[in-house]
Amino acid sequence: MLRDPSAKYRPFPQVPLENRQWPSRTITAPPRWLSTDLRDGNQAIVDPMDAVKKNRFFDLLVEIGIKEIEVGFPSAGQTEFDFISGLVRSCRIPDDVIVQVLTQSREDLIRTSFDSLSGAKQAIIHLYNAVSPAWRDIVFRMSQDEVREIAVAGAKVLRDEAAKRPDTDWHFEYSPETFSTAELDFSISVCEAVMEVLQPTPERPIILNLPATVEAATPNIYADQIEYFCRNLPNRESAVISLHTHNDRGTGVAAAELGLMAGADRVEGCLFGNGERTGNCCLVTVALNMYTQGVDPGLDFSDIDRVIETVEFCNELPVHQRHPYGGELVFTAFSGSHQDAIKKGFEAHERQNDEQWRVPYLPIDPADLGRNYEAVIRVNSQSGKGGFAWVLEQDQGLKLPKQMQADFSKHVQRMADELGRELNAADIWEAFKQAYQVQTYPKHFQLVDYEETKAVDGTRVFSGKIAVDGQEQSVSGRGNGLISSVVSTLEDAFDLDLKVLDYTEHALGSGRDARAAAYLMCETGDRVIWGCGIDEDIATASVRAVLSAANSAAA
Amino acid sequence: MLRDPSAKYRPFPQVPLENRQWPSRTITAPPRWLSTDLRDGNQAIVDPMDAVKKNRFFDLLVEIGIKEIEVGFPSAGQTEFDFISGLVRSCRIPDDVIVQVLTQSREDLIRTSFDSLSGAKQAIIHLYNAVSPAWRDIVFRMSQDEVREIAVAGAKVLRDEAAKRPDTDWHFEYSPETFSTAELDFSISVCEAVMEVLQPTPERPIILNLPATVEAATPNIYADQIEYFCRNLPNRESAVISLHTHNDRGTGVAAAELGLMAGADRVEGCLFGNGERTGNCCLVTVALNMYTQGVDPGLDFSDIDRVIETVEFCNELPVHQRHPYGGELVFTAFSGSHQDAIKKGFEAHERQNDEQWRVPYLPIDPADLGRNYEAVIRVNSQSGKGGFAWVLEQDQGLKLPKQMQADFSKHVQRMADELGRELNAADIWEAFKQAYQVQTYPKHFQLVDYEETKAVDGTRVFSGKIAVDGQEQSVSGRGNGLISSVVSTLEDAFDLDLKVLDYTEHALGSGRDARAAAYLMCETGDRVIWGCGIDEDIATASVRAVLSAANSAAA
Repeated sequence: MLRDPSAKYRPFPQVPLENRQWPSRTITAPPRWLSTDLRDGNQAIVDPMDAVKKNRFFDLLVEIGIKEIEVGFPSAGQTEFDFISGLVRSCRIPDDVIVQVLTQSREDLIRTSFDSLSGAKQAIIHLYNAVSPAWRDIVFRMSQDEVREIAVAGAKVLRDEAAKRPDTDWHFEYSPETFSTAELDFSISVCEAVMEVLQPTPERPIILNLPATVEAATPNIYADQIEYFCRNLPNRESAVISLHTHNDRGTGVAAAELGLMAGADRVEGCLFGNGERTGNCCLVTVALNMYTQGVDPGLDFSDIDRVIETVEFCNELPVHQRHPYGGELVFTAFSGSHQDAIKKGFEAHERQNDEQWRVPYLPIDPADLGRNYEAVIRVNSQSGKGGFAWVLEQDQGLKLPKQMQADFSKHVQRMADELGRELNAADIWEAFKQAYQVQTYPKHFQLVDYEETKAVDGTRVFSGKIAVDGQEQSVSGRGNGLISSVVSTLEDAFDLDLKVLDYTEHALGSGRDARAAAYLMCETGDRVIWGCGIDEDIATASVRAVLSAANSAAA
Repeated sequence: MLRDPSAKYRPFPQVPLENRQWPSRTITAPPRWLSTDLRDGNQAIVDPMDAVKKNRFFDLLVEIGIKEIEVGFPSAGQTEFDFISGLVRSCRIPDDVIVQVLTQSREDLIRTSFDSLSGAKQAIIHLYNAVSPAWRDIVFRMSQDEVREIAVAGAKVLRDEAAKRPDTDWHFEYSPETFSTAELDFSISVCEAVMEVLQPTPERPIILNLPATVEAATPNIYADQIEYFCRNLPNRESAVISLHTHNDRGTGVAAAELGLMAGADRVEGCLFGNGERTGNCCLVTVALNMYTQGVDPGLDFSDIDRVIETVEFCNELPVHQRHPYGGELVFTAFSGSHQDAIKKGFEAHERQNDEQWRVPYLPIDPADLGRNYEAVIRVNSQSGKGGFAWVLEQDQGLKLPKQMQADFSKHVQRMADELGRELNAADIWEAFKQAYQVQTYPKHFQLVDYEETKAVDGTRVFSGKIAVDGQEQSVSGRGNGLISSVVSTLEDAFDLDLKVLDYTEHALGSGRDARAAAYLMCETGDRVIWGCGIDEDIATASVRAVLSAANSAAA
């Protein structure tokens, strides 16, 4: 890398496209989708799928709503052929789903491909040959005319074999493979020659699939190529223009999207971007990108974890933690400010009257993919108050006052630093119990029993037993209300100086099992401290909150 | 997903950009690179890095050649602060590297940020606040003016604190966070207000970083936003325009590339695309994409596996098998036709006079990243003759004649189908030994010993011992040459009908340890069969090849 790459690598040339239109367009309707998971995907995995896996993957694709499925390369070997012919005979293929097989342009291989589909109601035979200069010069040592003739010869076999087998409704796809690195006018001339043989019509169009077999330029170049092709192809209305991008430069999804804006009708790809080398275009990402723009992709990812499970089982490759939409971490916020914004976004979403989604940091509602809040907010040493407060609310029902969140954040931060790992909901609850000495956590001041009476002058009298480090003491005091009577009791008995600044209480749960949570903000000396009490009785929750604050003061 | 998303999600609006220029531009020079692995990356991983990992990552970034490194968020906590101030004191920062820290716009936090860098020769303080409507309305409940005022107030603290600390050369970066979803004119007005406070000049510019905090549209929209911003920002020449994309729609790399074409000067991101949710822009991909266009990115990935090792150690996240350039499988071809094309491409590359790289299916020479052929060609049931022939050549030195490759492919295919897993070089060698009964493989006909003499009439006389299923027999025969004398011996002794069609031989290795490999194509009945012999002596290799063919004929 330390050397200059300019001698070895050349910049990709610009496309001679005048007055380009695609950058001003948007995607307003879904394309036709073709899954090549069982072909381009399968040929790129370390251990290709056996029949069990292939069938399971096929069923998944049907369930998702994919209507065009490339099921293999029948002439590649007996295993492949047997799976395809078995699939056709199995009645697994619904009436609205069409299967497709790939074949090189050789008469015997094309016949084998037709044979594998014997008995199918309808099918697509997908013919390809590589057309770009590197392939012509290095791999085949052929002229342009010879390469075109390969395609034409194959098309003639397609036409003739289809005529001999009238029980199936045959459709055709032709790929000028390595399209993205070929001369555009040559690719068009080859496609035109193939169309002359197959005589497509607007009612029975040919699929012309334009592969970025190897991604070799920024994605705008591919879009330029597609727009140029669509503009200059004769009889354009008799062709379905199909995109087939790869991801060598990490921009396969972008190329497909810009290609759709440039006029294409159909997208080939794999779920979660499996496929040769860096993979094919990820159909999940393209589809859900549309979904987040309000365009129904016609594909169902409402239980995305189940889709992932099947894909990972079949491909024996993981979906990466950061893969758009599917990755384990993609709806996760560890950062405090992110968590806070997301929390507010969810709250605003619940309040608002329209359905419109605009939660910060979440381009899609995780619920639309069958995921829930738990995946969204996760707490580590980078997190702030917003996140753990939300976890505490979702997990324990506690709605901490905002200023108390700031106080509690110091405790959480310390725990995260000490543990040096992500905190889960149980950790946060533990930190809370420890910080405010609630519930079973060992306390300095512990309420044993109390009763509350009203004096003749209207003041409240608190009298009870409080254990101090385990030693019970009988204590009492009075005030204008319950809380002030407890505060004055603590002042009298233990010389504790507590000034109540704020108080809130809310129900925890509902019905017979409902409890109450009380929060108390106090000043003691020059410190502001917090207490929390939880009890089945709302009055007792308040008393516990005062004792919790007393414990904080004594700490 | 089964429901229509149009009520919940809205299409992203177009940018009012007339006469857009970026789609006609190409990237001809590298940008300034800023790694935020230690900040945006670190805040998004399950277990944030400890100081050991952070230092190791920092050293890696320096080695790669990154000159601007965001090292953290000093006000986030003590751990973070201590690492940053420790780094500054450690003398780990070379003179040509500048560190950057992120801060929210609050006076105390900004002071803490300056404090953390005390003693640095030079540093960048990076101020941000979120500016888009969703954040203003939902998170802050603030007007545009109030949000602008937050930025201005922060900028004033930057200016004043820097003045108080003259021992460091301070630079400033401002991010109108959530730029990609904000009103463009508002973002510009905020940046303008910040620039009025900080008074940048072309000699001492401010960095204006324009985050796609959440990727919310196709990447052409981000490019439009960047071009609009660059055109309409007053005093443009006093600002370095920086891109900071995320990957929520899987197009973060594309957005950065199109953004550079639209006029930006700098790219922020992480190695292998770590970062919040779906990750930041992958710096490795953007840099190597440039490299493959002949543009020197100024970053060194010539030992990419070592980079991966460190990144995976620090982030505790894998680099996916299909991640561009870095993934384990991205230079791998399992498909036979791909393997064949790659093999021919490598051969052509060796023959050609220029350095120019044009090997099919490989957008970059794996050797430029420190990888070798072994990763490229891997064999499973989807593979054809090209691949395993190359593996056999690389692994054993055997250069099979083309027609023999076709014969051997059936054996490899059968082994791959039977094993149902990828074949490694040892498997292929085993299949070869079995198919042609070479070396120690148990044979029907086994050469024990022989001698070759010349008869008076000039013919050759072969006489030797051959074990047939272990039973030694003395045999002899004559012919015009060595091979024909062995053939006639076999015909006389065992009634074997072999007609030699073709013969090749080549050296295996060189020097004292050199051996020879001989290949023999024969007809027997209506079958064409192959034999191979390997021996230290070239004559004996030929004899072994005939016996190998005899074994094939007898099989």
